[in-house]
Amino acid sequence: MSNEKRSDVLRVGLLGFGTVGSAFAEVLAAHGDAGVRITRVFNRGVERKRGHALAKFVPADAVWTERVEDVLEAADVDAVVELMGGLDPAENWLRAALSAGKHVVTANKQLIAYRGAELFALAESKGVHLLYGAAVAGGVPVIPGIAQGLSGDVITRISGIVNGTCNFILSSMESGAAYGEVLKQAQAAGYAEADPSADVDGFDARAKLCVLARLALHAEIDPEQVPAQTIATISAMDFAYAKELGCTVRQVARVELAARAELMDGVVSASVGPMLVPKTSPIAWSHGTQNMVVTSGRFGGDVVFSGHGAGGHPTAVAVMSDVRAIAEGSVQVRLPAKKMAVVGDVVAPHYLRFVVADRPGIVAAIAGALAKVGANIDSILQHRGFGGDRLPFVVTTEPSLSSKLEEAMAEMAAFDFMLEPPLCLQILVVDDRDTD
Amino acid sequence: MSNEKRSDVLRVGLLGFGTVGSAFAEVLAAHGDAGVRITRVFNRGVERKRGHALAKFVPADAVWTERVEDVLEAADVDAVVELMGGLDPAENWLRAALSAGKHVVTANKQLIAYRGAELFALAESKGVHLLYGAAVAGGVPVIPGIAQGLSGDVITRISGIVNGTCNFILSSMESGAAYGEVLKQAQAAGYAEADPSADVDGFDARAKLCVLARLALHAEIDPEQVPAQTIATISAMDFAYAKELGCTVRQVARVELAARAELMDGVVSASVGPMLVPKTSPIAWSHGTQNMVVTSGRFGGDVVFSGHGAGGHPTAVAVMSDVRAIAEGSVQVRLPAKKMAVVGDVVAPHYLRFVVADRPGIVAAIAGALAKVGANIDSILQHRGFGGDRLPFVVTTEPSLSSKLEEAMAEMAAFDFMLEPPLCLQILVVDDRDTD
Repeated sequence: MSNEKRSDVLRVGLLGFGTVGSAFAEVLAAHGDAGVRITRVFNRGVERKRGHALAKFVPADAVWTERVEDVLEAADVDAVVELMGGLDPAENWLRAALSAGKHVVTANKQLIAYRGAELFALAESKGVHLLYGAAVAGGVPVIPGIAQGLSGDVITRISGIVNGTCNFILSSMESGAAYGEVLKQAQAAGYAEADPSADVDGFDARAKLCVLARLALHAEIDPEQVPAQTIATISAMDFAYAKELGCTVRQVARVELAARAELMDGVVSASVGPMLVPKTSPIAWSHGTQNMVVTSGRFGGDVVFSGHGAGGHPTAVAVMSDVRAIAEGSVQVRLPAKKMAVVGDVVAPHYLRFVVADRPGIVAAIAGALAKVGANIDSILQHRGFGGDRLPFVVTTEPSLSSKLEEAMAEMAAFDFMLEPPLCLQILVVDDRDTD
Repeated sequence: MSNEKRSDVLRVGLLGFGTVGSAFAEVLAAHGDAGVRITRVFNRGVERKRGHALAKFVPADAVWTERVEDVLEAADVDAVVELMGGLDPAENWLRAALSAGKHVVTANKQLIAYRGAELFALAESKGVHLLYGAAVAGGVPVIPGIAQGLSGDVITRISGIVNGTCNFILSSMESGAAYGEVLKQAQAAGYAEADPSADVDGFDARAKLCVLARLALHAEIDPEQVPAQTIATISAMDFAYAKELGCTVRQVARVELAARAELMDGVVSASVGPMLVPKTSPIAWSHGTQNMVVTSGRFGGDVVFSGHGAGGHPTAVAVMSDVRAIAEGSVQVRLPAKKMAVVGDVVAPHYLRFVVADRPGIVAAIAGALAKVGANIDSILQHRGFGGDRLPFVVTTEPSLSSKLEEAMAEMAAFDFMLEPPLCLQILVVDDRDTD
């Protein structure tokens, strides 16, 4: 980790010349004399890739190869930039690169979320850098902002929107589009995969949340332990009711240190899923594919980062920033993490939405099920314009333990008047604490 | 700039134990083993300061002194943290500290804005760090976020709210308060000085803008060359008209690289002053003393940073983050700057507000003056409820060169029906360019 590279050129071996890789070549070329040079590019189908419109930004003397060893073992590569994604084979490749004493810059959130601890330890033992600023929120400098600019605070909570696809879908639904339609539109525009599960079911956001938890809360958590709720059950009526409650619906990822006495030290509360977000919260302001992350610090209060979370060029900006930091010999502030368990449970007001066949006694039945778990009803809302044979209505609760509500929801789902599985969403509470 | 300090303790000499200095001691204590220790504290009236509620967070064996040399020349000080503010005597003190081979962390925006170039050169020649993350937007990591996280982009514009006092005043006026009242309230709360000129006339924001221009646009500009317009001429009627136009009023600081062919390379466009800000712009979302900075990058598009810009603890977080970076041997990415000239002129739609004694021919006279400078009228607005003896009305223009409009305003100010000096505000255009 010495700064011997400051006056030399940092030689980069690029793994992947797709959307981000080609944009990285363009961004690097725009920086001219930044002391960084691409010497090798690995990709399948190299001949086709060399014909890419942005291939002209790769130096003419760079080696293009279909053998990854030609990059990982090359003497003329100081830093490997990995833009392939996925755990396998990226993990083994990056282990090989780090073991060979090469710096690594990656945009791979899965790898950092699932294998971060081992990879950081390997990098440290080899005296090289492993930077991953592009792994969360693409072009928004949340990771370097936290690492270099908020290391002086004690961050207790992170919440935000880290999946642009879900934000595109939900903000389009807020403007009146139907879920199925807008998903198709997102797929056509390249925002969503053919199998949208990783995005809409929260697995992508969950990995990113774990990356942020390690950095900001110093909590090493297992992504599989973070409960993820799909956005696929959200429909137009939920936006109508949310609006009546001064809210909108967003996929929110949140993690916080347990502040309550009954939870032990070494436990974080975390979840990913659709939530009712008050219009007064910055999280409600994100539209389209924007990302937004809010950190809450004991001393500095809330800090908001937002911008373009994805796309080739914004992601390439994050990669390029990391590469420059390595070229200049910059050291990321160490924020050591310890293993922590995850509870999904949270005390919060909740939004419960039911679609029922109207008949007397429904409210009494629902109120009874909620009373049984100790949940107090805050309001009951019912929109006009629906026939009694298929009546949607909404109950909001006072702050209640989510696991207790889930018990009640399971009981209520079995009621014979219930036409659809009832929906339970947390309502985000806005409480930016004033600092002096 | 080696990382020899990583395993040792960084010994800090603190200049100033006021609101920020005492908060820094508390924040540092909360970090326990961060490898940083206060060894010396300089302040006037040391005996009184030692009785400060937060003085308990200073290690018992630290030396308290009223002689600044006891810090600047001390062998047991590796880094000087300056929290006094102002150019004199801070400049000479920090020169002495840097010359003695000590790192410097400062929250002093004036010093960085006016003397940054020389001080950075001195620090580089001595192989020490000069960090200033607290100089702009306090607890919001705009400076480290740009330096470490956006160095990979080519930033072409910065705009935002960097003076919390003005934002408090204007956002309170938006909710109905009168300028004079809310200024008094801000003074009572400690947000505004007895002489509010540095804040309301834009001089504070101007210095911060120059700090950001050097970092993000690599433009070394003279703060005195940046036109600053006071917010003291804004009144309730402006908020009413702004609302009708889908806007609010905020003190906006903006600087951008000249993109227009008729302006030479080496010129930036910059200004500070009240502007009409569309409600759809993130800049309109800041309330109270919040700060918000929007960077616009050629590759990454717009990135928004916001949070608590001032106050002891948020500012101390920024200082502590810089101190930790030095303790860990981190190097800030070098973003060399070159001297540039400033033009205040900008092509933008404008808001012109007049208070007149009503009589026939007023609109014709005003329209004539505007036509003479080639400015096209976009709309004419007039609220009901005012008598003809003191009639406010508003003209908005299509995009026009501000210097031409000022010519027209000078002519119109002399019209005999004009009861107050007319007001001319730029209307901010929201144009977050889509990236791929």
